[in-house]
Amino acid sequence: MAHPGLGNVSRFKIIDSTLREGEQFENAFFDTDQKIKIAKALDDFGVDYIELTSPAASSKSRADCEAICKLGLNAKILTHIRCHMDDARIAVETGVDGVNVVIGTSSHLMSHSHGKDISYITKIALEVIEFVKSKHLEIRFSSEDSFRSDINDLFPLYQAVDRIGVNRIGVADTVGCANPRQVYELVRVLRHVVSCDIETHFHNDSGCAIANAFCALEAGATHIDTTVLGIGERNGITPLGGLMARMIVSDRGYVSNKYNLKTLKDIEELVANAVQIKIPFNNYITGFCAFSHKAGIHTKAVLNNPSTYESINPADFGMKRHIAYASRLTGWNAIKSRAETLKLFMTDERYKECTASIKAFADVRRVSVEEIDSFIHAFYDAQKLGAPQDTLVGKSLDTVVVTSLDTVVKG
Amino acid sequence: MAHPGLGNVSRFKIIDSTLREGEQFENAFFDTDQKIKIAKALDDFGVDYIELTSPAASSKSRADCEAICKLGLNAKILTHIRCHMDDARIAVETGVDGVNVVIGTSSHLMSHSHGKDISYITKIALEVIEFVKSKHLEIRFSSEDSFRSDINDLFPLYQAVDRIGVNRIGVADTVGCANPRQVYELVRVLRHVVSCDIETHFHNDSGCAIANAFCALEAGATHIDTTVLGIGERNGITPLGGLMARMIVSDRGYVSNKYNLKTLKDIEELVANAVQIKIPFNNYITGFCAFSHKAGIHTKAVLNNPSTYESINPADFGMKRHIAYASRLTGWNAIKSRAETLKLFMTDERYKECTASIKAFADVRRVSVEEIDSFIHAFYDAQKLGAPQDTLVGKSLDTVVVTSLDTVVKG
Repeated sequence: MAHPGLGNVSRFKIIDSTLREGEQFENAFFDTDQKIKIAKALDDFGVDYIELTSPAASSKSRADCEAICKLGLNAKILTHIRCHMDDARIAVETGVDGVNVVIGTSSHLMSHSHGKDISYITKIALEVIEFVKSKHLEIRFSSEDSFRSDINDLFPLYQAVDRIGVNRIGVADTVGCANPRQVYELVRVLRHVVSCDIETHFHNDSGCAIANAFCALEAGATHIDTTVLGIGERNGITPLGGLMARMIVSDRGYVSNKYNLKTLKDIEELVANAVQIKIPFNNYITGFCAFSHKAGIHTKAVLNNPSTYESINPADFGMKRHIAYASRLTGWNAIKSRAETLKLFMTDERYKECTASIKAFADVRRVSVEEIDSFIHAFYDAQKLGAPQDTLVGKSLDTVVVTSLDTVVKG
Repeated sequence: MAHPGLGNVSRFKIIDSTLREGEQFENAFFDTDQKIKIAKALDDFGVDYIELTSPAASSKSRADCEAICKLGLNAKILTHIRCHMDDARIAVETGVDGVNVVIGTSSHLMSHSHGKDISYITKIALEVIEFVKSKHLEIRFSSEDSFRSDINDLFPLYQAVDRIGVNRIGVADTVGCANPRQVYELVRVLRHVVSCDIETHFHNDSGCAIANAFCALEAGATHIDTTVLGIGERNGITPLGGLMARMIVSDRGYVSNKYNLKTLKDIEELVANAVQIKIPFNNYITGFCAFSHKAGIHTKAVLNNPSTYESINPADFGMKRHIAYASRLTGWNAIKSRAETLKLFMTDERYKECTASIKAFADVRRVSVEEIDSFIHAFYDAQKLGAPQDTLVGKSLDTVVVTSLDTVVKG
């Protein structure tokens, strides 16, 4: 499933922004200790960059930035600032490896936010970039709301900063309105307009943050912004785990060799606890049902060969698949598998009878795994003792589970 | 933002499968009453079709299907069956408007699931389609795992069923591995291969279920499968609310005229309660932070003009935006706006002083909205009484909020 020669699907880098964009999530208040734990966990996972809140935001933001720079992590440390010399002067003193500069370039933002025009933006951008470069730090220049910006403004601006040696330009879908083919087209053209790296940042308001990141890589983008669980302004950006889910389907070798995938669940729990949220039921890879199979036709095939209904191997992330057999949609292959796990071996004919009874009572009310297990036990004992087939077949679950197995078998 | 002439972005139909795919969600056990409530809510929302579990799955499934057909809803009722005459004979007797037939066509499924080859599949497909058509019902024929199927198998099969007048063919990303440009290419070619409608079904394992649906419409697909909150096998499929978020950005007129968007939150709560899950913190449109703005630069612009940082108008869904001002990232525009809401009018200079103090204590620990409101009150009273500027500026929040306003003002 690799895409040889197709963009950077097989050689992308991650800029994790949990400690910047993530701090803009409504519930986020990270104290110093939490920030350090999160930075270390991200470093252990293997993200290429860690982006931090501007040191100009508050005195604590500045102190924490300095503290994280001193940890000696493998990941490069960036801080994210407004395109302004005041902020840049503070940023370069913190010990960061690079500075991520941003300014709004859409007509929406030029008229309703900072009120500057494109020639002013270009002038200040060049000044800030030259200054950061003079300090021998990496520098990225990003437009904001890039997909609602006029490309007649945007492209000359990107060319101007590329010409003076910016390390990366940034393309940001700040309001989450972009769609995949639009992203592909913009980045593909941009790939021919500048020679520097291209970083991309996608909000998820309209559900395309992962897909847009993927299409940006196909078109030649080099860096993707993520946050743990996608936390950020509004409903957030491309989630780290969701990006891993997408990329491992496309190039398992690159993703599993580069990133320490088995730590994903721990990082997500660390951040979820810090910002006081529950991990969504349907979270990529680590959600409780991510590898659950329920309908009879699915469970039969998965028991035979998991790739039939799985595009991701749960073991790559230290996760396990789960066959949900306690429902009206169950099939006899699932019940047989469960019985064998319980070391209750019967003929296929008996498994089918047992399944028919289970489907019958699971049709009437919600049943638990424990109830089904008790029933399989009782059914097994009954057939082993040579009880007539109809001792249990057709009996309601309620009858079975309120009595002991002995009673059922004898009764 | 409309796409004139581009596929069916501006004229798609929804087949909601909460009562079929959704029943395959691990936690789902719908009783008759819940199914009827959900069907009525979906009908009220305005989905075009409601798809139900096969009546062959269990006797309750059959009875519930018959009951829902008798409700007289505006939405057409479909049931989803295996491509088998036994299931088809049961389905056509239930009172449904149409039958959605499916069979696995990937090599994975042909070898590890049903074990049939493509010529057998074609033969049985034609037989089932002719039979359902003879009963004057709508009929859809779908492959399963379409994106891992050989197009040399798939296209002749689709052409064969199109030739005998199937209403729709179905394209299904059963394992959630497809990506947006791949979907666009497959559907675009298929649009030239068959003349019938094209229904699409996308699982979300790798985070592209909404984006893939959008690209399918761009390429000429006509129908999108959804479920409420995306519930289904594993982590589910394209969510109804997420699809609305995507489509309203692309064609607000079509979406808001056709669908009763203000009922979305109620439907999601109905289903979340039925399957015992929490609505994800980052849920599209209805998640608690979907319209929250926090960073100073964002809140300033949003207060000036919401479209600066919003691609969706919360009012279209009966939702409200929220300015999070109780954080170290807050800005004076947000504090001014909050103060004005509290009817505490000051000069901009005073708002800036008040904000500086708020940022200072919100930098040290998590603060609540109530604490900030108390502080603004105290600051207002102090400056109104002509207290020296430094009475409150620089004071810690703890000092302020543990005392009454009177004490603060006098102290």
